[in-house]
Amino acid sequence: DAVDIEKVIDEIKGDDQLSHSRLMQTAASVREVSRQLQRRPLKRAVRNIMIITKARDNTLVSLTRELAEWLLATPRYGKDVGVNVWVDSKLRKSKRFELDTLLAQDERFEHMLRFWTPALCLEQPELFDLVITLGGDGTVLFTSWLFQGIVPPVLAFSLGSLGFLTNFDFEQYKKQLTHIMGDAGMRINMRMRFTCTVYRSAASVATASGASTASLSTSTSLSGAPLDLQSTKIEGETHEVLNELVIDRGPSSYISSLDLYANDSLLTRISADGIILSTPTGSTAYSLSAGGSLVHPDIPAILLTPICPHTLSFRPMLLNDDMALKVCVPRSGRGGAFVSFDGKGRVELGRGDEVVVRASQYPFPTVMGQPLEWFDSISRTLRWNTRAAEQKGW
Amino acid sequence: DAVDIEKVIDEIKGDDQLSHSRLMQTAASVREVSRQLQRRPLKRAVRNIMIITKARDNTLVSLTRELAEWLLATPRYGKDVGVNVWVDSKLRKSKRFELDTLLAQDERFEHMLRFWTPALCLEQPELFDLVITLGGDGTVLFTSWLFQGIVPPVLAFSLGSLGFLTNFDFEQYKKQLTHIMGDAGMRINMRMRFTCTVYRSAASVATASGASTASLSTSTSLSGAPLDLQSTKIEGETHEVLNELVIDRGPSSYISSLDLYANDSLLTRISADGIILSTPTGSTAYSLSAGGSLVHPDIPAILLTPICPHTLSFRPMLLNDDMALKVCVPRSGRGGAFVSFDGKGRVELGRGDEVVVRASQYPFPTVMGQPLEWFDSISRTLRWNTRAAEQKGW
Amino acid sequence: DAVDIEKVIDEIKGDDQLSHSRLMQTAASVREVSRQLQRRPLKRAVRNIMIITKARDNTLVSLTRELAEWLLATPRYGKDVGVNVWVDSKLRKSKRFELDTLLAQDERFEHMLRFWTPALCLEQPELFDLVITLGGDGTVLFTSWLFQGIVPPVLAFSLGSLGFLTNFDFEQYKKQLTHIMGDAGMRINMRMRFTCTVYRSAASVATASGASTASLSTSTSLSGAPLDLQSTKIEGETHEVLNELVIDRGPSSYISSLDLYANDSLLTRISADGIILSTPTGSTAYSLSAGGSLVHPDIPAILLTPICPHTLSFRPMLLNDDMALKVCVPRSGRGGAFVSFDGKGRVELGRGDEVVVRASQYPFPTVMGQPLEWFDSISRTLRWNTRAAEQKGW
Amino acid sequence: DAVDIEKVIDEIKGDDQLSHSRLMQTAASVREVSRQLQRRPLKRAVRNIMIITKARDNTLVSLTRELAEWLLATPRYGKDVGVNVWVDSKLRKSKRFELDTLLAQDERFEHMLRFWTPALCLEQPELFDLVITLGGDGTVLFTSWLFQGIVPPVLAFSLGSLGFLTNFDFEQYKKQLTHIMGDAGMRINMRMRFTCTVYRSAASVATASGASTASLSTSTSLSGAPLDLQSTKIEGETHEVLNELVIDRGPSSYISSLDLYANDSLLTRISADGIILSTPTGSTAYSLSAGGSLVHPDIPAILLTPICPHTLSFRPMLLNDDMALKVCVPRSGRGGAFVSFDGKGRVELGRGDEVVVRASQYPFPTVMGQPLEWFDSISRTLRWNTRAAEQKGW
Repeated sequence: DAVDIEKVIDEIKGDDQLSHSRLMQTAASVREVSRQLQRRPLKRAVRNIMIITKARDNTLVSLTRELAEWLLATPRYGKDVGVNVWVDSKLRKSKRFELDTLLAQDERFEHMLRFWTPALCLEQPELFDLVITLGGDGTVLFTSWLFQGIVPPVLAFSLGSLGFLTNFDFEQYKKQLTHIMGDAGMRINMRMRFTCTVYRSAASVATASGASTASLSTSTSLSGAPLDLQSTKIEGETHEVLNELVIDRGPSSYISSLDLYANDSLLTRISADGIILSTPTGSTAYSLSAGGSLVHPDIPAILLTPICPHTLSFRPMLLNDDMALKVCVPRSGRGGAFVSFDGKGRVELGRGDEVVVRASQYPFPTVMGQPLEWFDSISRTLRWNTRAAEQKGW
Repeated sequence: DAVDIEKVIDEIKGDDQLSHSRLMQTAASVREVSRQLQRRPLKRAVRNIMIITKARDNTLVSLTRELAEWLLATPRYGKDVGVNVWVDSKLRKSKRFELDTLLAQDERFEHMLRFWTPALCLEQPELFDLVITLGGDGTVLFTSWLFQGIVPPVLAFSLGSLGFLTNFDFEQYKKQLTHIMGDAGMRINMRMRFTCTVYRSAASVATASGASTASLSTSTSLSGAPLDLQSTKIEGETHEVLNELVIDRGPSSYISSLDLYANDSLLTRISADGIILSTPTGSTAYSLSAGGSLVHPDIPAILLTPICPHTLSFRPMLLNDDMALKVCVPRSGRGGAFVSFDGKGRVELGRGDEVVVRASQYPFPTVMGQPLEWFDSISRTLRWNTRAAEQKGW
Repeated sequence: DAVDIEKVIDEIKGDDQLSHSRLMQTAASVREVSRQLQRRPLKRAVRNIMIITKARDNTLVSLTRELAEWLLATPRYGKDVGVNVWVDSKLRKSKRFELDTLLAQDERFEHMLRFWTPALCLEQPELFDLVITLGGDGTVLFTSWLFQGIVPPVLAFSLGSLGFLTNFDFEQYKKQLTHIMGDAGMRINMRMRFTCTVYRSAASVATASGASTASLSTSTSLSGAPLDLQSTKIEGETHEVLNELVIDRGPSSYISSLDLYANDSLLTRISADGIILSTPTGSTAYSLSAGGSLVHPDIPAILLTPICPHTLSFRPMLLNDDMALKVCVPRSGRGGAFVSFDGKGRVELGRGDEVVVRASQYPFPTVMGQPLEWFDSISRTLRWNTRAAEQKGW
Repeated sequence: DAVDIEKVIDEIKGDDQLSHSRLMQTAASVREVSRQLQRRPLKRAVRNIMIITKARDNTLVSLTRELAEWLLATPRYGKDVGVNVWVDSKLRKSKRFELDTLLAQDERFEHMLRFWTPALCLEQPELFDLVITLGGDGTVLFTSWLFQGIVPPVLAFSLGSLGFLTNFDFEQYKKQLTHIMGDAGMRINMRMRFTCTVYRSAASVATASGASTASLSTSTSLSGAPLDLQSTKIEGETHEVLNELVIDRGPSSYISSLDLYANDSLLTRISADGIILSTPTGSTAYSLSAGGSLVHPDIPAILLTPICPHTLSFRPMLLNDDMALKVCVPRSGRGGAFVSFDGKGRVELGRGDEVVVRASQYPFPTVMGQPLEWFDSISRTLRWNTRAAEQKGW
């Protein structure tokens, strides 16, 4: 096998007397491996391409048709035809998409043009070698929502001005797709996502539903201690987020009081309108409005940004990404709270409920346009200290 | 050999057709190795201990004497005597230190008590298995300044209230040193440092000194392009910093205008009183005063924090640590600038001069007291959203 | 008549050729009059005192009883008895208050002890020479809510630690009340309030209620132009606020888009979670959490503080208090908004609805404890750069 | 006499039993007088116009010549000739200004064209009915520096894009000057200035100069208490500032520690890189860079904005303008500080030295272009939440 990491770890463990300088060298080497991996382009043939867009937007459907046709028809990889294309199953009957005239062009297209459903994305994400999105940053967030497990590489086309996540100009799609499907391959940014799981207080669930506590499965408690009904938690929904998790007081005029734990230890009780746990990717979104710093997406960190905190000293903070963070609604508080995931799936949290947030094992890989594109995106979109006019040739 | 990283890299490179999901697995595995290394305690025998303190502070000298005596005399590692202790050569003649009475206690001490000099720290840092500091955060910064290359593990004792870097209470030194010199070993935080190098404009140096340009060695230019006198740079001083590099306008009332480059590409021209390039360790120092976020020291990031920026959109930013950042004083600007390194070594920069900052290959290893001590330090020192009273048992 | 201001204004108007330096002198003189008025203690006999507290809090009711008894019984103003005391009519039947035993002490008390109702506060505020509050800042805000027109001077006692508005310690009530009812009189801070009026879009009201537009009274439009149904507004509720008016997006996940007008001219369209229009008194409350500055309550200004604005350049702003500000929910927006007044009376605003905010003609007069008490309150409550320990004798 | 303010004050004082509501009415009336005065246009004939520009800038000198000629020649106020024009005495011999050809046009010009000097501005400011500046905001600040006492109305022309203070477009100078010299008159904004006085510690002066302390005049101490040498102060320079006073640590790397007093009471000890005491006019300048709010120039307030404060709770603050603020360099501190006035006159302060800042009795009157021009200036210059495109007709 090419890379036997477990063996490496075993060897490290075995060497009980490793000196400090030796340990440092090893750590540096491992870091170098990680960098080499990051910089390595993917060169495998791209045989299955999924296209995601807003199926209700007529303009986008027309462009999807154009793109699909070009991908199907343009010869690749030594054959006289293109690659398989997966489009939204909603387009099967779309007048704009004109499936009939497309299939009439080449009988092989009948087999090559395929239709994806949300269920397929969840169950067989490996089917796709590349996902192309047409739309804005919202379409990229929707893509993250579709792929709750493994995510194929995502190339995001913008139709107007480029966004934070839409870093390719659709006007040049032929040139750019031919480039990455050729010898150059594609370079990938692995964007961190969070796995967020809601745990409901068994006491409140029991009250609400009259359910027997006998059937309660206990939460995957961070500590693993035996729990009484008060502290027993029932695992609820889980979401992968690409931008951020927000917990706020909702319409309540009571101050939101939230307890923040790291690895089961209480860090602080937060009095604020709410808190944002943001990925670096999300640092240009809601966290920024709430006063957070801009964070390059390559940095492995969790941003904790309070919303209107009630103490002057509660400065935004970056936590390392190997912590399991837990936010609890205190039992003693006056009100509940609301949680939302990338701006969606907003639900109420009662007293004793909690949300656990971890760096996901399923990052979100985006195809990179150029090395400093993140800086360009913030200059362009935020007018970040507007980049100087004299620069050229990026 | 225990860990053959180069072989691993070669194998990765060889597998040209690595699939995306395979690449992701490998990256995750490498990351896991890195974490395992981080959590791994050092268990090697600690046979040589260096003590650093302020040699002019009588109280500290007395405590150094006490500590040295205890380390020399307390039996360790199966012998009936302690370990070698290195103290500041300035203490050789200190009345407070009373070298004579110490050596009189045991004739072996003559050999075991040794004296360090700054030169020794630079040339033979591997001599020391552990550095103990007595004092405040300033003493830890001084330690970083002493070890411009490899740094031994540093255990920082505080004499009053704990600081950001002084995370051990001197009142319990016997218990704590016996603990880490025993089976438990010591856990280490590898704190990032920056290597900062000043490059002087050859044009200005030539003007200033009348030196022939023929003898100029060109800078290790990031781009490597051939350079004329205008853009030829002469390498100047290099410093390792643990907290931050600051470039400011000094006493000039002209706005400081600075050009920021990443990997030789211009990111932005900065109009501000100055800028701070801070490590995560430094995020609780000057960067915080200038509006930066708090950043956990395990996060590999470079903080770019402007000082009184002249555009409202110049928010603090975190850059990934594999960039080489370069700050240049523009040729066209009205004034120069000043640079300082961890608050020391302040020198003026003229037009065309520049400073290059990179993550150092020589991090600063600090002995960890407890897992969440960083949160405790900010709660204690900054009153960060003062941590709740109910928590116990950390 | 003592001060014939109208005559003064007429005279100024008559002098059409007033020179610039003469105008400046006049303005400075008028300003001096204003200052003299501010510093002037009120020395009129305090014959009617109203006490406001939380009628449901047993401790507070007991203290109210104690205070009322002392005020009724302590001889004042040349008589052998005290002054009239007005308590909450809810206390008439309170067991804690023990009305019977109080009235039994002196037959004159039957006439001197009186009961206030919210209606009385609105209709005859001049009845009261002084209002005493027992409780926290919330009780002071409740007092502002009770007096929607003229407000008597308010002396706010704190029962525990002093707050922003509760600047007298109840433990010393005898000394302090005797002082201000004596020759010293009381110095007053005139705290600005805002008059906030909601105007509903006639179009939406017509839709909602099917009402004939013929009966619509048009709003007191700032411009006075003739209006069609689209822009016709129906005047809704009016509130006086002491702290702030908040308009936010409520539970909607859509960005709130609000148009801000000054004197009928559009200043800006705001994209944010919401905005706060705060008085200087409110600068230590919600506005501070959202990033606003601390503003001394003597300054005549309206604070415009955005909540999580979506542009980096939207810095908090202070507007002069002779502007009529209008916040409109755009017709073209995706969602509505919510408005609340000192944290109360929260109602939804639909598209086309608007709120007009003006400095009120009914300020909120608070009795001053000592000249720099505002600084003490922020040091104490916010730990504002904690005031130095060495100071004494304030 | 038209407005006998002293009589008004006497009458108020006489009425010892003024009721609270009566006091409130009076205060409101006085406030109304103040507003009427503010809104009142100046209509006196403008017979003497001073022009200020950069005498070294050739383009500006040419425009000054053009403007002067037009003002001299255009008939006004019933005569067949224009008004008197005062230009910089440095222009008397300027080739660009061509004095000879100008005077040759009309023999009356010999008398009507006059030359100003800085001394004249200080001694006879009433000579000028109007000051016109040509240049940028810096030229307006220079005008403030010239007039350390009474300031004539200032109309500031911009040559390119409008600035914060340069609110008239020079391209339309004929139309605009004819307008304000006609029946419309000119509306004035009275911009607050600060009077800043440096007091040197007698102890340090004695040490430095060997001067006999017998000759020391004591400062106009705020408290008036008798003083020993330690606390005796010697009055130094006084400056009027339009934007701000800055006190900073200068090139010292020691933290600046400053004591802030209001009316001789210690408010707080400040640990920061420095502090800014800014007028509302200065709120768009350095104070904004340091995190201060934007403050409309009509608001009578002193902005206290810390530069990189060393406590998280030191939020920017607005103080009322009838306070005398005093900033002292503590005797016990490690270093001195530097003070500058509108960016000029930078001098060092030693231990024990202090600066007293008061609202000046000599405000800076600027001619107003249009009612909401301040909002336009911040939208334009700061891109403050860029004002919506749809607005028209301002």
